[in-house]
This record gives sequence, structure tokens and C-alpha cells, in this order.
Amino acid sequence: MNETIAQIPLENAKKERLRLWLRMLKTTRSIEAKLRENFREEFATTLPRFDVIAALSRFESGLKMSEISGVLKVSNGNVTGIVDRLADDGFLVRAAVPGDRRAQRVRLTVRGQEEFLRQARAHEGWISEALGDLSATEARNILTHFSVSNLMAEEDA
Amino acid sequence: MNETIAQIPLENAKKERLRLWLRMLKTTRSIEAKLRENFREEFATTLPRFDVIAALSRFESGLKMSEISGVLKVSNGNVTGIVDRLADDGFLVRAAVPGDRRAQRVRLTVRGQEEFLRQARAHEGWISEALGDLSATEARNILTHFSVSNLMAEEDA
Repeated sequence: MNETIAQIPLENAKKERLRLWLRMLKTTRSIEAKLRENFREEFATTLPRFDVIAALSRFESGLKMSEISGVLKVSNGNVTGIVDRLADDGFLVRAAVPGDRRAQRVRLTVRGQEEFLRQARAHEGWISEALGDLSATEARNILTHFSVSNLMAEEDA
Repeated sequence: MNETIAQIPLENAKKERLRLWLRMLKTTRSIEAKLRENFREEFATTLPRFDVIAALSRFESGLKMSEISGVLKVSNGNVTGIVDRLADDGFLVRAAVPGDRRAQRVRLTVRGQEEFLRQARAHEGWISEALGDLSATEARNILTHFSVSNLMAEEDA
């Protein structure tokens, strides 16, 4: 009999976690759709393009194509096509890697850096608007739960 | 000068929301990847297929193809192909709509209902494992924040 009583909170936790998951899924998809729309309308660009320049902005000496692919696993873009278009737009350049004739490093131009800053500022604003009812403390608390918890941290490793 | 001081918490909130967003994105993608893998390995099925039978399980009299498409906007599947395969597997049947010769309703068979229950139970377990460090109360609290907050609720409408 005790077993039945003990199981109630567990069952509750299962249900609540499932509800939370469905809401998380809906929320992230809605925000992503909104970001996609905003990037297209305000910068004539896409999320994967933004992800590439964001990654490059963190590495002054640039990244190899394979390293960019690692970043883009997330946004599922076609790296070569994206890099080609960003080069056409003057946002990045390719340079040879000393000692490795076949490898190329890609890095942002000054114009690319400026463009990234403009887009990053807008992006931060859109996110802040989307999650606008969360105070800094609330956001941090939720973040802590996601950071500590769950197997997906291990999945990533 | 007061302006500078007043802006600090606002800037903090922006940063925290952005960090939360990046974590949410990473978390939902990792969980989705894990679900995809589990559905494939344990049920030889896909997320969109599960979404279709889950939707049908809520409507005893079935759904029209266009109504299923509405559900699948989320998972981006090809409705006709999915329904065809689920029919081949004996999980659903198509029936004419009285008074509308060209419309068809799709509904689960008994076998389809049983399959849905098996998959739903497993799905709930996987989610519970993925979010395993959240108690029922914590999950409910986070859920409340997502429900109250943000423009995406309006986006959906």
C-alpha cells in the first residue's frame, strides 16, 4: 500500500516534466520562427548565416571549414554555400593555412565584424522581447535548472 | 548618472534572457535528437509519425487530412506519406465523410490505439529521464514562466 502512496509524487513529476517539455518545444519553435522572420526582414539573412558570423566573431585568426561545420551542426546549414555567399557580401575572407597547402581558414572582415555586431544587438533585443516577462533572476534560476539537470549535457559530450 | 545605474538591471536581464535562450535551444535540440534515436531504435518510427498517431488518439471520430497537416506544421512531415505508411502498418484507416464525397477522415484502428499507448508511455519515460533533475514543483514553476511570458503565445494565435 505504501508503494502506491510513494508513487504518486513520482507520477506527478513525470506528468509535469512532460508538460514542461511540450511547452519548451512550442516556445523554442515559436521563437525560432520569429527570429527567422526578423533576420529575413531586417537583415535579409538567415539563422545559419548568423550562426556562422557569430562563430567567426569569436576567433580573430579565423576557423577552418571543418570547424565551421561543427558550429553548424546545430542549424543544419550548407557550410560551403553559406561561406560563399558571406564572402560575396564582403563579410569574410578565406586565407591559406601556413604549412598546409590544402587547408583554408575563414575569418571575418572589418565589415563582417560590424555586421555581426549589428545583428547580434538586434538578436539580443528580439530574445529579450520574446522572454520579456522573465526578470534577470528568474531567467538565471531557470537556466540553473537546465544546466544542472539532464542527460543532454552528457549527450553533447 | 541615475540613468546609468537604472540601466544595469535591464542590461542584466537582457544578457540572462539571451543565455537562457541559448541553453533552451541546446537543450530542446539534444532532447529531440535523443527522442528521434529512441523512436527509431525501439519502435522503428519517427517523431512526425508519433505526432500523427498522438493527434488521432485524441479524436475518436478521426481527423481530416487538412486537420492532420495543422498538427504536423510543428514536426514538418509529409502528411500524405506518413498517413500512407501508418495505414500500411494497420495503425489507421481512412473513411469517407458522409455528405462530402471528396473528403476523407482518418482514424486509429484498435491496433493503432494500442501502439500509441505503448509509444506514449515510452516517450513520457524518455522525457522524464531527460528532465530527471526537476521535481514536479520545479517543472511546474518553470512551466508557469513560459506560459505567462512571451510573445510566442500570441504568435501561435
